[in-house]
Amino acid sequence: MHWRHRNLLDLDALTAEEIEHVLQTAVPMKEILARPLKKLPTLRGKSIALMFYENSTRTRTSFETAGKILGADVTNFSVAQSSVNKGESLYDTAKTLQAMKIDLVVIRHASAGAAAFLAEQLKAGVINGGDGAHAHPTQALLDFFTLKERLGEIAGKKIVIVGDILHSRVARSNVLGLKKLGAEVVLVGPPTLLPPEMGYLGVKLSHDLDRELPGADAVMALRLQLERQERGLFPSVREYHRLYGLTKERLAKTGKATIVMHPGPINRGVEIASDLADSTSSVIEEQVTNGVAVRMALLYLLMGGGTSDVVD
Amino acid sequence: MHWRHRNLLDLDALTAEEIEHVLQTAVPMKEILARPLKKLPTLRGKSIALMFYENSTRTRTSFETAGKILGADVTNFSVAQSSVNKGESLYDTAKTLQAMKIDLVVIRHASAGAAAFLAEQLKAGVINGGDGAHAHPTQALLDFFTLKERLGEIAGKKIVIVGDILHSRVARSNVLGLKKLGAEVVLVGPPTLLPPEMGYLGVKLSHDLDRELPGADAVMALRLQLERQERGLFPSVREYHRLYGLTKERLAKTGKATIVMHPGPINRGVEIASDLADSTSSVIEEQVTNGVAVRMALLYLLMGGGTSDVVD
Amino acid sequence: MHWRHRNLLDLDALTAEEIEHVLQTAVPMKEILARPLKKLPTLRGKSIALMFYENSTRTRTSFETAGKILGADVTNFSVAQSSVNKGESLYDTAKTLQAMKIDLVVIRHASAGAAAFLAEQLKAGVINGGDGAHAHPTQALLDFFTLKERLGEIAGKKIVIVGDILHSRVARSNVLGLKKLGAEVVLVGPPTLLPPEMGYLGVKLSHDLDRELPGADAVMALRLQLERQERGLFPSVREYHRLYGLTKERLAKTGKATIVMHPGPINRGVEIASDLADSTSSVIEEQVTNGVAVRMALLYLLMGGGTSDVVD
Repeated sequence: MHWRHRNLLDLDALTAEEIEHVLQTAVPMKEILARPLKKLPTLRGKSIALMFYENSTRTRTSFETAGKILGADVTNFSVAQSSVNKGESLYDTAKTLQAMKIDLVVIRHASAGAAAFLAEQLKAGVINGGDGAHAHPTQALLDFFTLKERLGEIAGKKIVIVGDILHSRVARSNVLGLKKLGAEVVLVGPPTLLPPEMGYLGVKLSHDLDRELPGADAVMALRLQLERQERGLFPSVREYHRLYGLTKERLAKTGKATIVMHPGPINRGVEIASDLADSTSSVIEEQVTNGVAVRMALLYLLMGGGTSDVVD
Repeated sequence: MHWRHRNLLDLDALTAEEIEHVLQTAVPMKEILARPLKKLPTLRGKSIALMFYENSTRTRTSFETAGKILGADVTNFSVAQSSVNKGESLYDTAKTLQAMKIDLVVIRHASAGAAAFLAEQLKAGVINGGDGAHAHPTQALLDFFTLKERLGEIAGKKIVIVGDILHSRVARSNVLGLKKLGAEVVLVGPPTLLPPEMGYLGVKLSHDLDRELPGADAVMALRLQLERQERGLFPSVREYHRLYGLTKERLAKTGKATIVMHPGPINRGVEIASDLADSTSSVIEEQVTNGVAVRMALLYLLMGGGTSDVVD
Repeated sequence: MHWRHRNLLDLDALTAEEIEHVLQTAVPMKEILARPLKKLPTLRGKSIALMFYENSTRTRTSFETAGKILGADVTNFSVAQSSVNKGESLYDTAKTLQAMKIDLVVIRHASAGAAAFLAEQLKAGVINGGDGAHAHPTQALLDFFTLKERLGEIAGKKIVIVGDILHSRVARSNVLGLKKLGAEVVLVGPPTLLPPEMGYLGVKLSHDLDRELPGADAVMALRLQLERQERGLFPSVREYHRLYGLTKERLAKTGKATIVMHPGPINRGVEIASDLADSTSSVIEEQVTNGVAVRMALLYLLMGGGTSDVVD
């Protein structure tokens, strides 16, 4: 199958078949990641720039690891947030990356649309590593990989996403993709954190987690930004945990061998109880592994890959 | 031709022939940079330390890219500026680099003379990546490469450099080299930013940009440090742009197909109008590409290179 | 000889034979480091994560250099100290590293026990790069390598360690190892910086440097944290230097060709006179070189190495 994309900005641009193609490509990548010697010459001679305007050890390191395993040169652009002016400056940064013959840029930025803006300016490929509250497509793809791995298929499965839906690029990208893949999606959160317009995407909205759990195949908890409490978006951490925190007791209400997901880093005792996070129901660690595999697949597909996939 | 240097501190130590030799060596490097697979084993087993005591994503990344393409190991020394004591501490840092068997150090430092000091202490090669208001030889070399590429030759050409000459290591290194290469150089700026002593270098000084433009083959705008306005070094950004900002209308006064240069990052609407920066007269992006090529050439020449220049 | 370890947390877990084995392995590593081309494929396909929760250009760079020479992929985890919660958070970071299939983690942390905690959680190898005032085993090993290189053997030699013993992980790890290797160890410092319980380790404690110098084969000065003066732990820098600072005159009291050591970075004129630090008695620079060699040996031993140790 031919991969027609140069960029990955969000999942609305991909068909269900193309999403499946990424997930298929990630399968052998995960096998390579499990080898004692993890190194391919596939992207040798290719250069990747990591432009993270927001802190993100986790996503940045996942991309760096993925790129290095495939033999690419990976360069971190340490971006002092203060010195960067929005818009015009990003344009000139893009011009500079272009001129340095960078082959692919991964960008994380506080402004929704930053990745798309960069993609318009560059001949190089662009992967959106998270832009504002807009999109985080690689997180969604690793979630789908994990769901397929554990549930066999995604079509027809009931996925409950609970938490701060309003500010979550993870939720938004997941919804876009899960609908394409045929899942039943329920978004749960307190009224202040659950935007009614998400309903237009064909998903159910609910403020009552316990009512939505029965039959759920997977429950995904989102990270609660604790500083948002000060802005009155939720009453207290204790109250939040009582109503929306995942616990072993609560999970039992699904009546199934439901898996528990979280994009990390987790707030133990807030959106998820510590013992549940470490239980066999939790696939949180596996999501991290799958994140490297899915990013290896994306780097390979977007940069045209080499012709060889054997270890040199 | 044999390259007799271990260090590149400024252009006064190079003959015109040696400058030409660097520029010649950068020609095949630029071709390599344009390849789909950019990787040579030339400097495999060599180690480069990037010691940037001042922020510089652009120059640092250019060196990192150049070193990695040539197969060297490149290590960033993240230098917390606060924890560094001048002089003695740089001495001990040099001793440490020496002991770690680093082959070449690129240093950027706020103090003029820091690179020379390091070079005295080290057996390893040293490249000055910018020291105070003193010198920025790799920027000047990439400017010369760009001039030759566009103008055919440098001897006899009229080059106008406009802006904050007083604080500009870029201007100073350019003047030193351009005079050796036989160019006619005119330095233009407001009286507060144009030191009279630059006249001793055999260049013309002027406060009137419009009067100097006729016949110019290239005009190089320098970055205006906007915080210097507070210190009264120029009246206002608007007034500066009116008198010294490059625009399409102003450039037409040269009566030639003049090229427009800038070391970047640019202040759009200050030292250069946005539409001119993006026009076909502008070679600003090409300068960035040439910067990687010239730095590849310098790393190759200063580290003795390997015997092989084929892709492995 | 088989190396039975996965981790290096402190020297109490190693036998004298095992310490010797590390030092022996470092001998060819130092030869490789001295080559014009320093690159082995030994750890190609292996990944190393550097997690430095405290600033340390020196130790971090030493590990980065060692790993790259051996062909491993080395990734820096830039850890914003403020955003890290102790304990639980380190646990989740460990889980993430595990999931990313990192083969070995080097951790530096302000809390004693952080490395051991990480080692309990991870299947990956862990090297303690310094944890609080507890241990700094790789520094001690490079000190032993230097002692053996200069003194021929360690057993029976008199080693004086002088300075802020109380807060020094370097002193503590040195004492543990030096006793195993059969050295006579004397710890010297002002009463406020010399904990009496160190005496239980079978070493002599003293407040009088001049009285302990005769017969010393090596004197190791520790770095004085100058900010501790404010807390009243020593009277003044001047007084400290008068009583405990190493000088050429003072060193002459040993009556031998004594070597002077320091883990760096040095405070010239405080714990050591500047001319002594730069004299032929000083092995401070050699310690840095040996640090890279010893860390190459450890990375090789802990990661199982490859089967090849020839340059590719």
